Amino acid sequence: MSQSPSLAYTTLVQKCNELTFIHSANSALHWDQETYMPPKALDYRSRQLAFLSGWAHKEFTSVTTGNLISECEQAGFSPDSVEGVNTRQLRHSYNKQTKIPSSLVEEMSQASTLARSAWVDARAKRDFALFLPHLGKLITLSQKMADYLGTGSCRYDTLMDEYEEGESAARLRSVFAEFRKEVSAFLPEAFELSKSIPGNLLEGYYPIEAQQKFNRDVAAAIGFDFEAGRIDTTAHPFCTELGPRDCRLTTRYDERNFLSSLYGVLHEAGHGLYNLGLPEEQYGLPAGTYSSLGIHESQSRLWENHIGRTREFWSLWHEKAVHYFPELKRHSPDQIARFVNRSEPSFIRVEADELTYDLHIILRFEIEYRLIEGDLKAQDLPAFWNNEFEKSFGLKVPDDSQGCLQDIHWSMGGFGYFPTYTLGNMNAAQLMRKAHLDHPHLNEELARGRYTPLLDWLRTHIHSKGKRFSPQELMKSATGEATNPHYHITRLKKKLDLLK
Amino acid sequence: MSQSPSLAYTTLVQKCNELTFIHSANSALHWDQETYMPPKALDYRSRQLAFLSGWAHKEFTSVTTGNLISECEQAGFSPDSVEGVNTRQLRHSYNKQTKIPSSLVEEMSQASTLARSAWVDARAKRDFALFLPHLGKLITLSQKMADYLGTGSCRYDTLMDEYEEGESAARLRSVFAEFRKEVSAFLPEAFELSKSIPGNLLEGYYPIEAQQKFNRDVAAAIGFDFEAGRIDTTAHPFCTELGPRDCRLTTRYDERNFLSSLYGVLHEAGHGLYNLGLPEEQYGLPAGTYSSLGIHESQSRLWENHIGRTREFWSLWHEKAVHYFPELKRHSPDQIARFVNRSEPSFIRVEADELTYDLHIILRFEIEYRLIEGDLKAQDLPAFWNNEFEKSFGLKVPDDSQGCLQDIHWSMGGFGYFPTYTLGNMNAAQLMRKAHLDHPHLNEELARGRYTPLLDWLRTHIHSKGKRFSPQELMKSATGEATNPHYHITRLKKKLDLLK
Repeated sequence: MSQSPSLAYTTLVQKCNELTFIHSANSALHWDQETYMPPKALDYRSRQLAFLSGWAHKEFTSVTTGNLISECEQAGFSPDSVEGVNTRQLRHSYNKQTKIPSSLVEEMSQASTLARSAWVDARAKRDFALFLPHLGKLITLSQKMADYLGTGSCRYDTLMDEYEEGESAARLRSVFAEFRKEVSAFLPEAFELSKSIPGNLLEGYYPIEAQQKFNRDVAAAIGFDFEAGRIDTTAHPFCTELGPRDCRLTTRYDERNFLSSLYGVLHEAGHGLYNLGLPEEQYGLPAGTYSSLGIHESQSRLWENHIGRTREFWSLWHEKAVHYFPELKRHSPDQIARFVNRSEPSFIRVEADELTYDLHIILRFEIEYRLIEGDLKAQDLPAFWNNEFEKSFGLKVPDDSQGCLQDIHWSMGGFGYFPTYTLGNMNAAQLMRKAHLDHPHLNEELARGRYTPLLDWLRTHIHSKGKRFSPQELMKSATGEATNPHYHITRLKKKLDLLK
Repeated sequence: MSQSPSLAYTTLVQKCNELTFIHSANSALHWDQETYMPPKALDYRSRQLAFLSGWAHKEFTSVTTGNLISECEQAGFSPDSVEGVNTRQLRHSYNKQTKIPSSLVEEMSQASTLARSAWVDARAKRDFALFLPHLGKLITLSQKMADYLGTGSCRYDTLMDEYEEGESAARLRSVFAEFRKEVSAFLPEAFELSKSIPGNLLEGYYPIEAQQKFNRDVAAAIGFDFEAGRIDTTAHPFCTELGPRDCRLTTRYDERNFLSSLYGVLHEAGHGLYNLGLPEEQYGLPAGTYSSLGIHESQSRLWENHIGRTREFWSLWHEKAVHYFPELKRHSPDQIARFVNRSEPSFIRVEADELTYDLHIILRFEIEYRLIEGDLKAQDLPAFWNNEFEKSFGLKVPDDSQGCLQDIHWSMGGFGYFPTYTLGNMNAAQLMRKAHLDHPHLNEELARGRYTPLLDWLRTHIHSKGKRFSPQELMKSATGEATNPHYHITRLKKKLDLLK
């Protein structure tokens, strides 16, 4: 029952579009769960998400899909063509997904929806015991998943491949060791310089409505399309796409500190620009999908840090910020820029400064590696975390909400996800350097609030490529070399000047 | 491959649960479309909803489902048992749904999502021409749907059967004629009495946030569970359920008039109490589904009008209303109660007083009957509407946004839906009378804000029954007789005393 290559391809695309309708419905249900869903709805929602995930998995791993992919492989599409890219990447996913039983996909979905809710509760009550059984279950399910897949040289590598194709724990460990060594050399000086900047310098009253307006102005200015997206409020900020022109950002507000939501929005809007910049007509197909989480994170960190934490940004936005928050008048743009670059050891990753941020990641990487490889038991997590944290940061963790319960990722079964944050930081610095090389006047453009040349450069070299390349190939195609920590380290070191 | 009756039943239930996961996802996507979705997301959303509707339809109408129903029919379940009810009602739906091709379901879904958006635009711009092609298409598709089904004695009856099982246009026409005759006899007096109550009596400034708080207090007091539901803002208020414990109400706000959102919320919360009162363990099965729209509407109108528009309600809630809206202090509870019962001819159905409301419905019934039966062309709708409206209300329609473009229903392909509103009013009066007979002290309870006895009565006699009975059987079981317009007419006539 062989059909013509183009018919097979069209049918395969149709199938993927249908599965994407389900995945996007799932994303909408997840978004709702985080933003608006009433609490008693959780039980039904968890079963609903499990069914939809399982069903999409069954459909994708069906013999029909496999045959369509085979037919497309025999069609002789050029490897660089959209058809070639989609066929190759779908084969890769198919071979992986068919190794996993749909029942495990369902079990994982339901367990993580429930764990997600237990985690919120445990964090609020600072009670690790409430989360422990869920964490244990998710580790077991993740290990099972890794065993079914068996693609990496260890379970952890197998899981990480979902987020960062081709990455390995062994390589990361050596990159991270080098990074830590280099950064540790100038970190004490950064801490010392930062001491002259009071931590409560900008503490004040910043009404949420004014924060929302300011954030919206900034997000719109960098190019986020509010006709194709919006910002809602959540406990744990994220960005998700519900369709090719439907990108939802979320943030949280602190009335005493407008910077938390501002940098949250800049970060998530960076993700959003990537999502909305992917080839729309390829939505739901590999050619219309992001390359990896390490690439995705490079986009968010680029706008958050390389744009949002510069002197130029605050020179430009100071007037508008004062318009919304009159008490900011007391501080010059340079004072604010200095403040947002101050560095000190702290407990919470998402509020950590750029200089210490990656140390938080490296800690999590080492811990989750042990959890998945069976070297650390779930019940021993708090003690291990607190001990390792003190070694890295010289601080005693006061309670688990400021320690091992602070992040959402493990409650979603996202083991192997954390290292992509530091890869993202490294990629961001490397991409930014290349954009500057390609646009000698980029700094002047940015200083005037003309963000389009930078966005266009990212669209051309990153967004429009979809999943056409592996993340490292994409970095090579965009910058001439694979991820090189050097640029990120250089940038961090240069921050000392800002602090002087 | 016959299985045991209980296994067949379990498998059928499982199948229905799965389909309900899809339907609930669709409801969530619809809810999102009305509340938060960014505009550019519409095109994808319409295709997504069409796919999901079509897919659920295909699965439900499959031979597998048919065989399961047949096996359950042969199992000899008692007709009154939950199993018997579910089997019988699923057979009824199956026989109907299998007559419709899934492609038509998809076409209808997509056409109505797009029409819904065109209608919003047309209404805002007061330009019927923008909506006309969509309306024409929906009429054609609805006629096609009716022809496939062919269950009623005319197309209109066939379509109405979806909303009100067993109802017919011929019977309604005679009920409505009688109703109109009786009400017309005392309507002029009501108009005359109302003239002494200024229409702008309560006009003022009512901040939206204060309205939200007051509405929430009232909804919680009548028993709406905010742990299992919420209120959001939309252009066209509605109530939808996304799960057995996930009921979403919506309303709209007018800062000059707090009554619009208050009665909107009381109305939708009435629907919500019904949804949340259905047997949870039967969610997604006929035994856990509402009986008909005429029954559903009886619940919303009961709380909105029989509770919310009484002197007792305003005596009880006056203090709290003044707390939120200090300027209300100028008016006594009785003055407010009189005001919310004043009657005058007006253009907008959803803002019409109780005495004229049903005349709006009868107008729509006569018009949609003609549209579906082919006696009125879509392009002739505005002229026909305006002419008939003037005959009924003595007013000239200034533009179509206050005429034939005011309601959402036709843009959703909901032909045959309108008459259920007046059936709902009639049912509400009849149920309320019976509740009073069963609870001689009900008035005193309600005056003290003890709404539980009434809610319990409704849960026992209506909510807990699901779709166990046809709507008319349900009315008989709850009140001893089928829908009888007499109680509604008597109530309306008694309103004259309130106006004196």
